Amino acid sequence: MNEQEARQRFTEARVARLATVSPANDPHLVPICFAVDDRDEHGTIYSAVDAKPKTTPDLKRLRNIAANPSVTLLVDHYEDDWTKVWWVRVDGTATLADDGPERANGLACLAAKYPQYAADPALLGRMVVVRPTRWTFWAYRDSV
Amino acid sequence: MNEQEARQRFTEARVARLATVSPANDPHLVPICFAVDDRDEHGTIYSAVDAKPKTTPDLKRLRNIAANPSVTLLVDHYEDDWTKVWWVRVDGTATLADDGPERANGLACLAAKYPQYAADPALLGRMVVVRPTRWTFWAYRDSV
Repeated sequence: MNEQEARQRFTEARVARLATVSPANDPHLVPICFAVDDRDEHGTIYSAVDAKPKTTPDLKRLRNIAANPSVTLLVDHYEDDWTKVWWVRVDGTATLADDGPERANGLACLAAKYPQYAADPALLGRMVVVRPTRWTFWAYRDSV
Repeated sequence: MNEQEARQRFTEARVARLATVSPANDPHLVPICFAVDDRDEHGTIYSAVDAKPKTTPDLKRLRNIAANPSVTLLVDHYEDDWTKVWWVRVDGTATLADDGPERANGLACLAAKYPQYAADPALLGRMVVVRPTRWTFWAYRDSV
């Protein structure tokens, strides 16, 4: 796997995990739907918090990002046949885009990937924007 | 989903994601194979670093745990039908068990879950032991 293939696999995944760090320096982890704007050389990553807060117990990620914008995202592929396992990780810096063209771009990217968002844009709450600083990837088949 | 069911789903999963925090307070994230000792009331979680360091680029998790034992693990289930989505998260404290009965117990739990470990115990390197402090879980079906 090279970086181009790693980014492609990440982009095509339906779910990633977002890690943030709390002000007390505890890690926090939540699965997210996300979309990568691949027209952007660096691959800006968008994810939206569910606009119906009662459906999720967890907005801690937003508080964490406000205090510490350093985030990590992971896409992994597991099979019991370990020769097929791979993962792609992105370290980056997160901001919130509550309005303006950046939010609009995130909405468009997410709606293009997930029919639910296209059908009901009201699902899309606050927009987390991650600018990647480093792509890391691993595949069993490259390690032997 | 109640806590008992959440713990069962977590225990049965084949892969989890482990988040740690670096000394610079950046998050770190890696997929792991793991086993839960469910004879233990609190559900101690074991995972072993691959004993062949060249097959993984990443022992940063061990350095992070040594500096900050606060960790989070996530098991998530994604489907494009979002009504079937769920996740289970464990916050806990990690230590390393390099020898003694705790390491032996971890080896036994991991070998019982993964045939690869049973067939080749040399795969099992340093043993990360997580003592859960909090179980958090979410299912779409409980949120509507």
